[in-house]
Amino acid sequence: MRVGIVGLGLVGGSIALAIHEKGEWHAFGVDRDRETREAALAARAVDAAYSDVADAPVEQADLLLLCLHPEAAEQTLLAIAPRLTPGTVVSDVCGIKRGITLVARRVLPEGVCFIGGHPMAGREQNGFAYAVSDLFVGAHYLLTPPDDAPPEATAMLCDLAEQLGCADVRLTDPDTHDASVAYTSHMMHVLALSICEQRQLMTSKGFEGNSFEGTTRVAAMDVDLWNGIFWNNRDVLAASIAELEGKLAGYRALLEGDDREVLRARMREAVARKEEWNRA
Amino acid sequence: MRVGIVGLGLVGGSIALAIHEKGEWHAFGVDRDRETREAALAARAVDAAYSDVADAPVEQADLLLLCLHPEAAEQTLLAIAPRLTPGTVVSDVCGIKRGITLVARRVLPEGVCFIGGHPMAGREQNGFAYAVSDLFVGAHYLLTPPDDAPPEATAMLCDLAEQLGCADVRLTDPDTHDASVAYTSHMMHVLALSICEQRQLMTSKGFEGNSFEGTTRVAAMDVDLWNGIFWNNRDVLAASIAELEGKLAGYRALLEGDDREVLRARMREAVARKEEWNRA
Repeated sequence: MRVGIVGLGLVGGSIALAIHEKGEWHAFGVDRDRETREAALAARAVDAAYSDVADAPVEQADLLLLCLHPEAAEQTLLAIAPRLTPGTVVSDVCGIKRGITLVARRVLPEGVCFIGGHPMAGREQNGFAYAVSDLFVGAHYLLTPPDDAPPEATAMLCDLAEQLGCADVRLTDPDTHDASVAYTSHMMHVLALSICEQRQLMTSKGFEGNSFEGTTRVAAMDVDLWNGIFWNNRDVLAASIAELEGKLAGYRALLEGDDREVLRARMREAVARKEEWNRA
Repeated sequence: MRVGIVGLGLVGGSIALAIHEKGEWHAFGVDRDRETREAALAARAVDAAYSDVADAPVEQADLLLLCLHPEAAEQTLLAIAPRLTPGTVVSDVCGIKRGITLVARRVLPEGVCFIGGHPMAGREQNGFAYAVSDLFVGAHYLLTPPDDAPPEATAMLCDLAEQLGCADVRLTDPDTHDASVAYTSHMMHVLALSICEQRQLMTSKGFEGNSFEGTTRVAAMDVDLWNGIFWNNRDVLAASIAELEGKLAGYRALLEGDDREVLRARMREAVARKEEWNRA
């Protein structure tokens, strides 16, 4: 098994480290940053490293993982598609799946299968320097195989998820994926930014507990990465935010009203939903 | 040093366990639940346990900690005030400080000092069964001593915070406290409830990462406790929520617009604020 990892940042680097630890697959890497390539080679995360995907032996890869920002992944796919050979499986790690899936359908040669992937973990820091082999331990790995994906292609990515120590693999489609993560992930990031924009941020330092830390942690984000994710998922993300605005306005109206018991009843229902979610 | 802990639930129980581990102070406890009293005695968290505060030797306590819901703490203060003797310091652990401070000012006898307290930690579970001696390790301990508080009274509570392993003690006033935690804590709880009310909750199970877990964790809350906190802090809480609604609407408008660079610039500013907060 030969894996090509295009992009050796936090995610690509962590995947490379995990694969190296398992010792079952061989990996080559691509990264335009010289220090990153040297660090990845020194850590033996990859056997070989190329500065440009044009020089990398992508036609020899069994699995090609695009570990880039969404739009860079699409551009790379466009650039390498003509060189790919039948039997190669291509995947990515982006937080959105509709755009790249459309590109893949359009440009990949016969016999080259694209299966969108999204291992749901991250850190506040970016780059290979922060990559760790256990980044994905316990995380969900979402996959969006097309209906005609060969079972062995999907199985190869399930094997990868297992090597990473993921909690489970969930198979879904790009539309469902993007709408779901708009709510579970992208909206949490907009929320974190919004809270940090509030006028009380700095004066409330020292008054925070775990709930504040847990909610605002992701505000220290890679702006360009998340700008791409937000923008390319803006239809469903805006809809999730609009719904949340309505819920918050509802709570505010109750707080501005005079019936504490209506507030209590509403809280009870929401808590019951959370408890149901925890049990599920 | 004799400490009376009124209410041996998660917070009171955890404080009792931590004090017992340190072995410097003696504690008696009050809890109306028989199983709780027996468990606290068995764990040697308290030397003696009473079912009713009317039977407890509150007049002999150097420090009396009301570890009850906000309104129960106020009622208990009203009930025991006539029995308290000069030199006793009274504190509480509630998430709001204005109400009980007003009650204390009105009813406590000369020489009995009330210093509001708020150790900022919690768990999703309640009751002595979940109490742990390290619940407050690394947490902020907020105190609202009145201007005329004897230094040794404040020092006693700082000593308690140290025994609990708190990260620091912050002295503030009830108004500042309530407005700050409306933003850092109470709003996070309203948010968690609101997100759990959204229609995608159950269908998105399996699509969540750490950001969703971190933001919604506190939705599994004690409804009666938090109904009391929300209601008694509703003026400043509603104001914080209104501000957040405006921020979210701003992001949504940008997502519904056509200028990705304006969105990027706004994100960049918010991230810079978060990074400043992290450094502070």
